[in-house]
Amino acid sequence: MEKRLVLIRHGQSEWNKLNLFTGWKDVDLSEQGKEEAVQAGKAMLEYGVRPEICFTSYLKRAIKTLNIALDTMNLDYLPVTKSWHLNEKHYGQLQGLNKKETAERYGDDQVLRWRRVFDCQPPALEKDDERSPFQDPRYKNVDSKSLPLTESLKDCIARCMPYFNETILPEFKTHDTILIAAHGNSLRGIVKNLKQMTEDEIIKFNIPTGIPYLFTFDENLQLKEDRFLADEKTVKELMDAVANQGKR
Amino acid sequence: MEKRLVLIRHGQSEWNKLNLFTGWKDVDLSEQGKEEAVQAGKAMLEYGVRPEICFTSYLKRAIKTLNIALDTMNLDYLPVTKSWHLNEKHYGQLQGLNKKETAERYGDDQVLRWRRVFDCQPPALEKDDERSPFQDPRYKNVDSKSLPLTESLKDCIARCMPYFNETILPEFKTHDTILIAAHGNSLRGIVKNLKQMTEDEIIKFNIPTGIPYLFTFDENLQLKEDRFLADEKTVKELMDAVANQGKR
Repeated sequence: MEKRLVLIRHGQSEWNKLNLFTGWKDVDLSEQGKEEAVQAGKAMLEYGVRPEICFTSYLKRAIKTLNIALDTMNLDYLPVTKSWHLNEKHYGQLQGLNKKETAERYGDDQVLRWRRVFDCQPPALEKDDERSPFQDPRYKNVDSKSLPLTESLKDCIARCMPYFNETILPEFKTHDTILIAAHGNSLRGIVKNLKQMTEDEIIKFNIPTGIPYLFTFDENLQLKEDRFLADEKTVKELMDAVANQGKR
Repeated sequence: MEKRLVLIRHGQSEWNKLNLFTGWKDVDLSEQGKEEAVQAGKAMLEYGVRPEICFTSYLKRAIKTLNIALDTMNLDYLPVTKSWHLNEKHYGQLQGLNKKETAERYGDDQVLRWRRVFDCQPPALEKDDERSPFQDPRYKNVDSKSLPLTESLKDCIARCMPYFNETILPEFKTHDTILIAAHGNSLRGIVKNLKQMTEDEIIKFNIPTGIPYLFTFDENLQLKEDRFLADEKTVKELMDAVANQGKR
């Protein structure tokens, strides 16, 4: 039996709208972000993709994207597991800062490095900073050695992938279709791994928001195909956008 | 350490508005029902009740009540387990019928018996009726001997309570506060059990919608207190309404 994995990157959040670095800050979806989640559910319905089990992060913009998409499909009852391992990359001291102000303070080049160099971490938070995960009760049961105060893309992928490999993938033993609703950088880890991309390739690869990204495997979990669940014109535009981002 | 259990009965659904028998039909909350869920979340915040783990049914009016209440509390990330054991009482052939038309067809007395006699089942559905759980993929993994085609309140409680006792209560070993969002009749089973009510008492006891119902236990899980999380005036009105329903 063919196995299918669907990735959904959450849509616009209130802080995306304000152009702030978000990371682990638990901001809500904007109205546009909620509408993107509805569209993601409709796309899965249209392409006949019916998830059986779902995973998401500890952050409400991903959780609500999942809940809204499931509700659109009348699949509210599906099992959902939430894990901090699927959280967005932690942006350290940048969290809550305006991207424009950050560029003015640290310089365009430095900001570009934080966003575009695989193993470059933003300045770390102090443990007692109110933005630190050590101050947030939702992480009280997480081993404190695992909790980040900042992360590079490399760190984010390193924290996401063991969970993907050890907890999510084994669900294919009992399910045919798995859905993950998460974030740009945690999903990059999964895409890098499945498509065997280099560090440079994955940094340049931007997953579009709200478009279900379908991976199809054979019964030995060998990847057969990956595609976005959208019409040809939209997919071409998405692919061109991804390609152009690599060229900039 | 004191242990706490909170029950929330979902608010108005689209079919409540239309005065239809609902049962296992998966209808959505009305706008009023969504607002009741927000108020339930606000009440828990106001009374300092912070759930750590949640349970709900397979029906979206309960699932969405839970999701909305959690979102109101910024506790979207809490673990949620969904189970068909917490579903509303199955109303058999009455599901989808207008309550007024049903009374005209079967007579007021019969309808009252279906609604008010502890072990009285409405007429059963056929297995191949489109309304039957045997036709619904969400129940495909449920042992077919357990799936109902109609239920009395007694049947509903008998299917709910083993799940409550064997799956929900043991969570007190690792958590202090458990939240259950479910339905009038599945919650009646839990209330009957915790308050050691007779069959007659529980039939007359109507749990109000959208008001968190808090049970407090000592460390040996002996019930110390039960109360609705609402101001004194509202609680008095609720209690009077419950008492008057008994008298009618």
